[in-house]
Amino acid sequence: MNETKPRWPLAPPMQAALEMARQAAAAGEVPVGAVVVKDGAVIASAHNAPRTLNDPTAHAEMLAIRRAAEALGDERLTGCDLYVTLEPCPMCAGAIAHARIARVYYGASDPKGGAVEHGCRTFDQPTCLHRPEVYSGLGETEAADLLRGFFAERR
Amino acid sequence: MNETKPRWPLAPPMQAALEMARQAAAAGEVPVGAVVVKDGAVIASAHNAPRTLNDPTAHAEMLAIRRAAEALGDERLTGCDLYVTLEPCPMCAGAIAHARIARVYYGASDPKGGAVEHGCRTFDQPTCLHRPEVYSGLGETEAADLLRGFFAERR
Repeated sequence: MNETKPRWPLAPPMQAALEMARQAAAAGEVPVGAVVVKDGAVIASAHNAPRTLNDPTAHAEMLAIRRAAEALGDERLTGCDLYVTLEPCPMCAGAIAHARIARVYYGASDPKGGAVEHGCRTFDQPTCLHRPEVYSGLGETEAADLLRGFFAERR
Repeated sequence: MNETKPRWPLAPPMQAALEMARQAAAAGEVPVGAVVVKDGAVIASAHNAPRTLNDPTAHAEMLAIRRAAEALGDERLTGCDLYVTLEPCPMCAGAIAHARIARVYYGASDPKGGAVEHGCRTFDQPTCLHRPEVYSGLGETEAADLLRGFFAERR
């Protein structure tokens, strides 16, 4: 029996985002999950679903942001935080800026598709209209393992 | 009576996108319109609607792409063209790449918010997964006049 435990338990919103990523994999979608938090409570959650929904914009972050804005009745998610298991792509980083998300927490880095610490580094562009605080690496191992497992099965 | 006419009539899909932009202005939204064309026919059209829909992702391009993908029952818009009255932002440029749009025709340039010839120049990034052909300046005067008129009224 392995009694090794992480010294700090993973933040519950990132645990919720990882659970959404697992649901994505179960649905045959690339396993990425996201949740939006306001005042400490999860107000929207989603997983990657472009195939299921026939919607090329249906990344986890996009769906979570849209659901949160609908729940709040406001196109701006001022004071809200986004937890997502993978570094956001250019589309999602743009949406995060439009939505005025306060803080972004993401798990695994994405050197190929990411646009926060890679590619166009969306939030570092002088023309970026809103810069969230960004924290990376939360749940990185779990998030990356889910992605690796998903693609390994399909090879 | 002014009988001056443009020497070339504007391509009908851009005329349709401009009509959508006019509808946006009438709805109190920043006047940007977009249509998706496949095999010479408009299969989806939309105008900017983030306020109306309480959706920060509801740019004209995003809505037109989502509607086209729904109409085709496919997350990829292979062989489709997008006509939009304003240079796409980072979010919309990312969505255009995800959707595998073949050709993008846009009207006015957007030095502040654009991400095709400005800012992160999405399609020029080495990590960009799909590069559409890009044509700019179609209907530029009409598109820019609509935007100027809209913001002038609100100052």
